[in-house]
Amino acid sequence: MLSKKSAAIHSSPVRELLKFSKEPGFISLAGGIPATDMIDVEGIDSVLQQLLAEDHRDVFQYSVTEGEWPLRQSIANWTQNVGLPLDPQQILITNGSQQGIDLLNRVFLEKDDVVLVERPTYLAALQLLDYTEAVIEELAYQGDQIDLGALETRLAAGGVKMLYLIPTFANPTGRIIENEQRIEIVKLAHRYQVVIVEDDPYGHLAFTEQCRETFFSLAQQLYGVDHNVCYMSSFSKIFSPGLRLGWLALPEKFLMAVTVAKQALDLHTSTLNQHIAARYIASGRIDQRIALLKETYRQRRDGLIESLQRHLGDAITFNRPEGGMFLWCHLKEGMDASRLLKACIEEKVVFVPGDVFFAENPEKNALRLSYSMLTQQTADEAAVRIARALQTLSS
Amino acid sequence: MLSKKSAAIHSSPVRELLKFSKEPGFISLAGGIPATDMIDVEGIDSVLQQLLAEDHRDVFQYSVTEGEWPLRQSIANWTQNVGLPLDPQQILITNGSQQGIDLLNRVFLEKDDVVLVERPTYLAALQLLDYTEAVIEELAYQGDQIDLGALETRLAAGGVKMLYLIPTFANPTGRIIENEQRIEIVKLAHRYQVVIVEDDPYGHLAFTEQCRETFFSLAQQLYGVDHNVCYMSSFSKIFSPGLRLGWLALPEKFLMAVTVAKQALDLHTSTLNQHIAARYIASGRIDQRIALLKETYRQRRDGLIESLQRHLGDAITFNRPEGGMFLWCHLKEGMDASRLLKACIEEKVVFVPGDVFFAENPEKNALRLSYSMLTQQTADEAAVRIARALQTLSS
Repeated sequence: MLSKKSAAIHSSPVRELLKFSKEPGFISLAGGIPATDMIDVEGIDSVLQQLLAEDHRDVFQYSVTEGEWPLRQSIANWTQNVGLPLDPQQILITNGSQQGIDLLNRVFLEKDDVVLVERPTYLAALQLLDYTEAVIEELAYQGDQIDLGALETRLAAGGVKMLYLIPTFANPTGRIIENEQRIEIVKLAHRYQVVIVEDDPYGHLAFTEQCRETFFSLAQQLYGVDHNVCYMSSFSKIFSPGLRLGWLALPEKFLMAVTVAKQALDLHTSTLNQHIAARYIASGRIDQRIALLKETYRQRRDGLIESLQRHLGDAITFNRPEGGMFLWCHLKEGMDASRLLKACIEEKVVFVPGDVFFAENPEKNALRLSYSMLTQQTADEAAVRIARALQTLSS
Repeated sequence: MLSKKSAAIHSSPVRELLKFSKEPGFISLAGGIPATDMIDVEGIDSVLQQLLAEDHRDVFQYSVTEGEWPLRQSIANWTQNVGLPLDPQQILITNGSQQGIDLLNRVFLEKDDVVLVERPTYLAALQLLDYTEAVIEELAYQGDQIDLGALETRLAAGGVKMLYLIPTFANPTGRIIENEQRIEIVKLAHRYQVVIVEDDPYGHLAFTEQCRETFFSLAQQLYGVDHNVCYMSSFSKIFSPGLRLGWLALPEKFLMAVTVAKQALDLHTSTLNQHIAARYIASGRIDQRIALLKETYRQRRDGLIESLQRHLGDAITFNRPEGGMFLWCHLKEGMDASRLLKACIEEKVVFVPGDVFFAENPEKNALRLSYSMLTQQTADEAAVRIARALQTLSS
């Protein structure tokens, strides 16, 4: 009775690994989980208590699909400051980026439409695309950069409906698409009538001063209201993942279709949670928290890098991301990160083997290590355990 | 760039009408909205404050897809008392029934699969089905009851994947499928390998003592763990719609596929909201609130009936539902409820024309009136305004 597609789709390996992270004694570098110790419980409680002290009956009642106006307004005010000028009317509140991807898939993708994705890309986006009738293809690269010539050739050949990108501190690679490339991609997408989905959950978590503009903003400058970029972001990594809150910024021409799809899916996002977020943003706490997170994650990045260097030496290479939560690493050529994971589970340390992030031709020696939750001690211990596991593979 | 389907789908007329309900001076009988004045703000605040007083950091963090164990446990304990014995493991937490329907559609429906629905049925279920490649067909009736012989014939002919039912105080008709019919339908569905989706948001809102068993429970008794009924319910009508909480009870064989689909859609339902609900149920407040709602809605039903009789006489006929929130009404044959609605908007009263609830051959003289929000005065005033509007149609 299950559809063929459903019977074939498996649980996310990341979420399966997460179950280990709850077991005592395990060190998890698996999840894209913001540090629990870094959640601003006092700050959230404070705005929640203010809300409860006022007449708040309506936060328990149904709301409108687009989202509560105070939150849409808070977001629009807030993003002005980071170079993304928005009208609250352009903003739709979601249950997080994951739902954002699902909504855009539903609204745009028909059978055999091609979606171009980065190599590698966010696993759960690939999983959602598997539920559609679209075809996933990887972008071509020149080194670490998207090959724009190849992209143009592919777009000109036809069939491409959507470009799904995480252009700032991509998951899992930490890569950044620079401004000049962004402009070229926006122009290509416009010429060939392709939707750009700009997924930006980590943009705020930059360790150094950043001068990039969003695809959305660039496209708005180039083409006015008639551009093709759908921007999405999330409060999961900078505020609270448990509240399930994200948002989309859409060109007006797509607003109705996406809103109607959201309406059909679950009517609207929790009214209470939206008001908590609106107040948290308006209070300025979110900027203070982001500043703290940036500093903390930078240190944790450095801590993990140092520990890996110390205990694994040249057995592992990795990037040095300028933001976000992940190191993207490689074992020596020919090694299998999934085999290493099995050995690591015996040593009570887990990570995500990198092959799952590839739409095609996975790199079997790749692995993603999340440093968001690590202290200096647990980073060091994790590296020790990985090294031990690696030893057992060669013995 | 929008998919053809998306470009064709319109906003729900109910939600469009809801915008009127926010305008000053309007009386709305449009929404399936539990009375705002009946939301137990003090009770919800109380359990929320208890939660905040304890170590609650984890309610702001990611959770597992299936849902928080305390809530699944609370629900299982609670439903024992209303004749639905469940194991917490069978329960999956959703963002409300709407998402429940979407999940089951995703997991079961393939191109050209037939879904049999009641005539008429829940509008938003029809809308969600429009996003799929399935085909909607109406059940055949004998009077007000499903024609079981016709149902068997249709199932035997093949192609039917799913039966979507709201068997207790159906939206919009208020109809009830009685136990003997339930057993027959369960047997037929089992014989022909059809999934039964039992949507039960109103089951608790019974105005008199009720002795019905759920399809889920009956199927479990008849066929053990290998039955085909997916039960869904919601906290929207009995607790808080704004918190966006519902749940599914599933046979074990479907649990994995539905969980994986939920994971892909939005990872999990808000952790905070789940804990609020778990405590609210465990505290026993929910049963007190339901008792109050039942009494209030019964009175409001009677109040609306009385006002309609007084001001509209035989211009309108309607049912007398034994529970739930709606009167299902008919104007005289040949009259058009949509025309009446236009005139009613001039008189500042709104309702939902009944034709939108039909998959085929809509009854144009039908209309759904929600009494959940009405006081005696507003019920009377609503009837006065409808009568006035009706007058303008014949003049």
